[in-house]
Amino acid sequence: MNKNFVAVNYIDCSPEYRNRFEELFGSRAKQIDTMPGFVDMQVLRPSREGDAYLIVSHWESEESFKGWTKSKTFLDGHKRGFEDMAKAKAEGKEPPMKSDFKTYEVIAQ
Amino acid sequence: MNKNFVAVNYIDCSPEYRNRFEELFGSRAKQIDTMPGFVDMQVLRPSREGDAYLIVSHWESEESFKGWTKSKTFLDGHKRGFEDMAKAKAEGKEPPMKSDFKTYEVIAQ
Repeated sequence: MNKNFVAVNYIDCSPEYRNRFEELFGSRAKQIDTMPGFVDMQVLRPSREGDAYLIVSHWESEESFKGWTKSKTFLDGHKRGFEDMAKAKAEGKEPPMKSDFKTYEVIAQ
Repeated sequence: MNKNFVAVNYIDCSPEYRNRFEELFGSRAKQIDTMPGFVDMQVLRPSREGDAYLIVSHWESEESFKGWTKSKTFLDGHKRGFEDMAKAKAEGKEPPMKSDFKTYEVIAQ
């Protein structure tokens, strides 16, 4: 499968949430791996503390990526993280992470 | 080979330089591909204009990445870009691109 399209989720984690964040991905259910057009993904821990984590997913096309974001698999895959966010909000705390999604086309390899 | 270490070069390109930037990578000599510990690389064009291009390279280890940055191959591979930068400076112009290197460890796939 060709990696034509890349989605990068830039995650700013609070220092206290970092272990939990890494645990969520270390124990991910890998449902995304069954989505049509999914190629592979990596979770990247920044060398410099304070930089964002990167969740990089490779797709055959933008359509396959969009198909995932609208799927039940997307909601299921983010369930535990969403719950942590909701819990912090209910307790009047700052969100433990902030995410920024950017997408890209592979133009050279 | 395992992708354990990732280097991302975030490139902010001036609008006028974008075509030239893409041309440089489209015609790259692929010398980096022969470096020990190099796994693969992708050049990513942002979907949203104004976002940075990403040059993502995967390495077996931090050591192999550092070996590359200190090599003649690194200098050779950046020669045309460096020349464009020097030319702009000599003409008293703004640099056509700005780069920010960040490195990461792969913690989940």
